[in-house]
Amino acid sequence: MIRPMVVQHATPARKMLAQIRRGITGNEGLASNGARKAKQEENVKAAGRENMKSPICDMLGIEFPLLAFSHCRDVVAAVSRAGGFGVLGATAHTPDTLERELKWIDDHIDGKPYGIDVLIPENISTSGEKNVTWKSLEARVPAEHRKYTSDLLKKYDIELTTTDVTDDRPQPFDAETALELLEVSFNHPIRLIANALGVPPKAMIEMGKRHKVPVAALVGAKEHALRQVAAGVDILVVQGTEAGGHCGEVSTMVLVPEVIKAIKPIRDVPVLAAGGIMTGRQMAACMAMGAAGAWTGSVWLATVESETSEIFREKMIAASSRDAIRSKGRTGKPARQLRSVWTDAWDRAPESPGALPMPLQSIISRDAFNSIDRAAAAGNTRARDLVSYFVGQGVGLIDSVKSAGAVVQEFKEEFAEAVEHMNALVAE
Amino acid sequence: MIRPMVVQHATPARKMLAQIRRGITGNEGLASNGARKAKQEENVKAAGRENMKSPICDMLGIEFPLLAFSHCRDVVAAVSRAGGFGVLGATAHTPDTLERELKWIDDHIDGKPYGIDVLIPENISTSGEKNVTWKSLEARVPAEHRKYTSDLLKKYDIELTTTDVTDDRPQPFDAETALELLEVSFNHPIRLIANALGVPPKAMIEMGKRHKVPVAALVGAKEHALRQVAAGVDILVVQGTEAGGHCGEVSTMVLVPEVIKAIKPIRDVPVLAAGGIMTGRQMAACMAMGAAGAWTGSVWLATVESETSEIFREKMIAASSRDAIRSKGRTGKPARQLRSVWTDAWDRAPESPGALPMPLQSIISRDAFNSIDRAAAAGNTRARDLVSYFVGQGVGLIDSVKSAGAVVQEFKEEFAEAVEHMNALVAE
Repeated sequence: MIRPMVVQHATPARKMLAQIRRGITGNEGLASNGARKAKQEENVKAAGRENMKSPICDMLGIEFPLLAFSHCRDVVAAVSRAGGFGVLGATAHTPDTLERELKWIDDHIDGKPYGIDVLIPENISTSGEKNVTWKSLEARVPAEHRKYTSDLLKKYDIELTTTDVTDDRPQPFDAETALELLEVSFNHPIRLIANALGVPPKAMIEMGKRHKVPVAALVGAKEHALRQVAAGVDILVVQGTEAGGHCGEVSTMVLVPEVIKAIKPIRDVPVLAAGGIMTGRQMAACMAMGAAGAWTGSVWLATVESETSEIFREKMIAASSRDAIRSKGRTGKPARQLRSVWTDAWDRAPESPGALPMPLQSIISRDAFNSIDRAAAAGNTRARDLVSYFVGQGVGLIDSVKSAGAVVQEFKEEFAEAVEHMNALVAE
Repeated sequence: MIRPMVVQHATPARKMLAQIRRGITGNEGLASNGARKAKQEENVKAAGRENMKSPICDMLGIEFPLLAFSHCRDVVAAVSRAGGFGVLGATAHTPDTLERELKWIDDHIDGKPYGIDVLIPENISTSGEKNVTWKSLEARVPAEHRKYTSDLLKKYDIELTTTDVTDDRPQPFDAETALELLEVSFNHPIRLIANALGVPPKAMIEMGKRHKVPVAALVGAKEHALRQVAAGVDILVVQGTEAGGHCGEVSTMVLVPEVIKAIKPIRDVPVLAAGGIMTGRQMAACMAMGAAGAWTGSVWLATVESETSEIFREKMIAASSRDAIRSKGRTGKPARQLRSVWTDAWDRAPESPGALPMPLQSIISRDAFNSIDRAAAAGNTRARDLVSYFVGQGVGLIDSVKSAGAVVQEFKEEFAEAVEHMNALVAE
């Protein structure tokens, strides 16, 4: 009943589609900083000629407006090399470890542009306190929550071990540390800084302006978007509830047009759609609604380069979208993650003491998941039931593990297919 | 920074886009049944020449694959006349009142095709019981729930009155009644029967086959879609969590491609995307992901023809997407509706006795909302805080009340714009 696709003549759009299909995947290494800079400028110019007509491509100097958030430097480099834009999640780093990662990226990204993402929550239970250390927070975790955690793990034959941290290690999601991380990143040719939760602090927006690097911020509601635009962000990442990690309750399908409509009379801020986007067809869908590109995360967890464990990859492939649930069990704020015995224990068990507020719940879950993952990797099959990680509802679309470059190429191909499909729908 | 749209030459797609823009809105009445039938056949043939290349257009004999679910006959007729496809929500009717509605539609739809929707839940607390009457259920509502309701309304100066029902009136969502409604509908030139909750009973699928009328069914999860395909439905309405009314938890952006992928190896069943779709751009987005068309509901609540009260319309215009919440407060099953004092009282109040299972909660809420709406309409401004109705997150995109025909025309225009936008993105 579906009619054959109408064959069209070689229009400009057609040629661009063919280019997208071909892809551009140069990945030769570059020796010096000078060569790197020159290569980046050359790339940006080339992109200006061949890129998709999106303001994001112009702003970031990229060919294809697909942004990839990842904690894994290999993914960041591979995506940028393939014509997208890798964004390194830097939150868990110290300035020293971040410096090492960025150096590695510079050496492997073939002069292509990339960015970094920090996580500076607006509301956190330690707000207003200075120099809060990880150690000091450990002392604040109630005995009841400790016992609940160790009892839970014991039921699955897992010993809860505590990972030593240095005395001066800052708390998770520490705002001061995030700004230090940004300072480190400006010594590298980054093209974007992003804040993953709430309005970026004024200092971050000023840093961006000073270094002429656009500032992006994630929003999960129209009201947040309006505040972000007023605060001066350059790019809005409009993230639906289906996204992995911290998320709101409004879907991508509704939130993207709602935000675009709301900010239009105020200021022309490009919108990246986020939440559930695992394919080029979905990316095309979001751009049909007016997004300037896509911000993706979960899809990179199922790449050969990613940091995820073999067991978690198997669980992702087995999961359907309904297995990615919104829970406070990992960080204390609602974040989408794979449902497991862990999330059930905090969300559903009648005896649950309830998750602690951010950042305390992260203190509990860091040690717990280190213990769980180690036990599962060592062959404790029951530990597997607890294994979990942040992932969006798009997990239901994951059916294999591919290279990050291949994923970018598939996005391009599917995007081209979507455009051709739309044209075929309205053909005579 | 956004570049101007590339002007293209008159391709076939371009001509079709121009046709879509023009719209086809013939609405002359037809005198006889014979003329009606002849006109419908003529329309179907014309549609075959000019319609969008979607299997849904072929199946239903329509020009533009936009399906409009509404409890209001005026909306159904207006949408079909404008080139879409109206679907009358028949659940609340008796066979007699439905006959009257369908007769009216036949007289006002200019021979265009339309369908009806019933609601036969698979799981309901009275499952297995025969001849359950509304009156008998009234006796089953616990005194605690009655008192909670009347106390709540009293706080807002609303008197809870009970609407008389006849002794033989069946329970809400009664499966036998639904089949009787379908029998009535087959005396009219309907082109689709749909079940809004769960797998249609075998009798419904057989009725469809016997009368050569396609059977559609709503699904909110991949697992449900697989069961529906196995049961033999002809069209899947894949509805994301953002939808108004009964809904699951997976978003439209994820569920549509997830279901399309899952059913592909089994059987070629066209998918209508549903949930959050209020504009032609969103419809284009869903079709870019492979949907054969869109199923819409909430957008018709804000039309001049719709059954909604003036006060509810004002509340819709004021609402953002986050005000459309998933609650058991109205029917006993999770259904998305406008948040109000009513939903808070059942979902959030510590003293809430908890919603009763379907169909009992409907017995409570029917009388309560009759009382609330009457009080609000009579000028009780506090009653306004309780006013609510089923509506999806797309409520955040409603900013005015239009005619249903104008909404269809806007969908067509925005769809055309989306296709042109996609082409401009990939133009040289």
